[in-house]
Amino acid sequence: MSQSEVITLAQALIQRPSVTPKDEGCQTLMAERLKKLGFSIEELFFVDTQNMWARKGQQSPLFCFAGHTDVVPTGPINAWHLDPFAATVQDGYLHGRGAADMKGSLAAMIVATERFITDFPDHKGSIAFLITSDEEGPFINGTTRVIDVLEARNEKIDLCLVGEPSSTHQVGDVVKNGRRGSLTGFVTVKGIQGHVAYPQLAKNPIHLVSPALTELSQTVWDQGNAFFPATSFQISNIQAGTGAGNVIPGELDVQFNFRFSTEVTVEQLQVRVVSILDHYGFDYDINWIINGLPFLTAEGSLVEATVKAIKQVQHIETSLETTGGTSDGRFIAQTGAQVVELGPCNATIHKVNECVSIEDLERLTDIYYHILREILA
Amino acid sequence: MSQSEVITLAQALIQRPSVTPKDEGCQTLMAERLKKLGFSIEELFFVDTQNMWARKGQQSPLFCFAGHTDVVPTGPINAWHLDPFAATVQDGYLHGRGAADMKGSLAAMIVATERFITDFPDHKGSIAFLITSDEEGPFINGTTRVIDVLEARNEKIDLCLVGEPSSTHQVGDVVKNGRRGSLTGFVTVKGIQGHVAYPQLAKNPIHLVSPALTELSQTVWDQGNAFFPATSFQISNIQAGTGAGNVIPGELDVQFNFRFSTEVTVEQLQVRVVSILDHYGFDYDINWIINGLPFLTAEGSLVEATVKAIKQVQHIETSLETTGGTSDGRFIAQTGAQVVELGPCNATIHKVNECVSIEDLERLTDIYYHILREILA
Ligand SMILES: [Zn+2]
Ligand SMILES: [Zn+2]
Repeated sequence: MSQSEVITLAQALIQRPSVTPKDEGCQTLMAERLKKLGFSIEELFFVDTQNMWARKGQQSPLFCFAGHTDVVPTGPINAWHLDPFAATVQDGYLHGRGAADMKGSLAAMIVATERFITDFPDHKGSIAFLITSDEEGPFINGTTRVIDVLEARNEKIDLCLVGEPSSTHQVGDVVKNGRRGSLTGFVTVKGIQGHVAYPQLAKNPIHLVSPALTELSQTVWDQGNAFFPATSFQISNIQAGTGAGNVIPGELDVQFNFRFSTEVTVEQLQVRVVSILDHYGFDYDINWIINGLPFLTAEGSLVEATVKAIKQVQHIETSLETTGGTSDGRFIAQTGAQVVELGPCNATIHKVNECVSIEDLERLTDIYYHILREILA
Repeated sequence: MSQSEVITLAQALIQRPSVTPKDEGCQTLMAERLKKLGFSIEELFFVDTQNMWARKGQQSPLFCFAGHTDVVPTGPINAWHLDPFAATVQDGYLHGRGAADMKGSLAAMIVATERFITDFPDHKGSIAFLITSDEEGPFINGTTRVIDVLEARNEKIDLCLVGEPSSTHQVGDVVKNGRRGSLTGFVTVKGIQGHVAYPQLAKNPIHLVSPALTELSQTVWDQGNAFFPATSFQISNIQAGTGAGNVIPGELDVQFNFRFSTEVTVEQLQVRVVSILDHYGFDYDINWIINGLPFLTAEGSLVEATVKAIKQVQHIETSLETTGGTSDGRFIAQTGAQVVELGPCNATIHKVNECVSIEDLERLTDIYYHILREILA
């Protein structure tokens, strides 16, 4: 039995060991296929990151596939049953780093586009690919920089399908039509160092902060809404002490993270945290990093086309969700584009023995093809 | 003006750089002086620690001077105004590492004993010196091992004067007639590691423990008593987190210390801590180290003689206290001996530019002499 086109292309991509922020020729491979279809290719290299903007057509609407060619490191290589960069097909699965996140999706996008343009050479609108090699890294020189370039010349994505592995049990069972925001806080509590035998001369920052941490961890920040789960607060790191058992530490560092819904703003969260900390009357510094604002594509032609395509191919009702980590979708959504994320099952991503079901990848190609047809045919 | 004997001997001791657990010949120097007075000398070397038991007489009561020849490290040598091992006399002070803790006291003990035996050759009772070189270290092979040797042969100290620097503004203003106990606890809280975006799959040990830490830090353990301040609880170290901002840690380590009075026992403190932790229903391990049990010499001939001697020499009422850190006095007190600690001012101990007032050291010698006379003349 001959191997399907999408698997062959996914293998070629996996065999390029593009550990973030490397691209290792993956984008060139994709560009060659797209050039044959009439796409014009723009290579955008920033600092250490290879990006590609490929576009065919000048009409509206502009439908864009978005994704990344970089992969996370393999982790302990001996824990892999198969070479992570061999792209072995075995027992109905394609194995390798990036198989599910997200070289399988990239292959499916290319093959679906090839079929669609062959079937509908005179389609309406335009098709684009926004591909980066730093989605798994610090996302500084990737999608966000490409968006800056597009915005500077007033080029606007209308509809964007991100290939992140959104599915849980079978491809298409879950589509992300938004993501929560992520906000990180760093607090340094200032006490006074001293000897445990003389606590009256010291101020213990662990004692000072613990009731505040209790209140923060028990606070209900919102109830979520129809699209978002409730905002969650988690302390990720805490450290105080010299290691010595007889020293009261002078400072304590704590880091926490919000995953927040569209029911609250960054400013509201900051005000509420500061008000809780202030209530306990200790001295502290606080710094914030906004990792990403929440976004939501509640409805519209992209969501409709995606739901319909999944039903046609898989005969299931997809579930629209906003849970999980952040993704590059947030940078694209900020331009006003409709954004959904749809890709293969994510059970093995970022783990050893990452793999993707061959059948899922073929069905994903069909779904992408149907979405293109719904929107542009 | 000729220099007093106690200063000359203190200089000779300071010039031997006996950084813990080294002795560097200090005990030999003391032994030579004591041999001339008729003391029999026992050298007790354990592992890395030089100890000396010197005794004159076989009668009761046995009065013992206790102390240590080791010193803490100098710390940053450039921060010293004078060579820490030169034992320079300048502006009324003797300067050097160990001047106050406690080579000055050792010199005062020797000179006071020499004068006392010269003045009262037929005194009653016996005199001993229990000297170690690991009081500033882990106190494993020092006083506690010598006490084991004495107990094994049923040799019993009745009254013990430890030369630790107890004074605050002038020598004799404070005498320690006991010390609080010290109990250290190590708790590991067991959560479940996870990603901050999926808190429902994780258990955050920082969130679990913080209300328990609040309760522990706010608990009143006792009210103290006439001799002891209230038991104090301090958390000295806390650590959780991988450093990554998006990971909920799987474990948290916290270390705390009690300084406790004679109103509570180790067992009572342990039961109460475990009951508070259990109340919050999380999984944890706990380990304990008893650093020292509290001891108290509430009254008796040693306290009376000490108070009287200070009054005679300094014309002040001394203050009997049990505050501050632990000392080797706890090992001696456990044998049933009366124990007091009396030495020079402690403002500069364990710091750079350690020094002792020459006049204080001469007055301390006088006080030691008067105590010997009160008890043994
Ligand atoms: Zn990805
Ligand atoms: Zn000392």
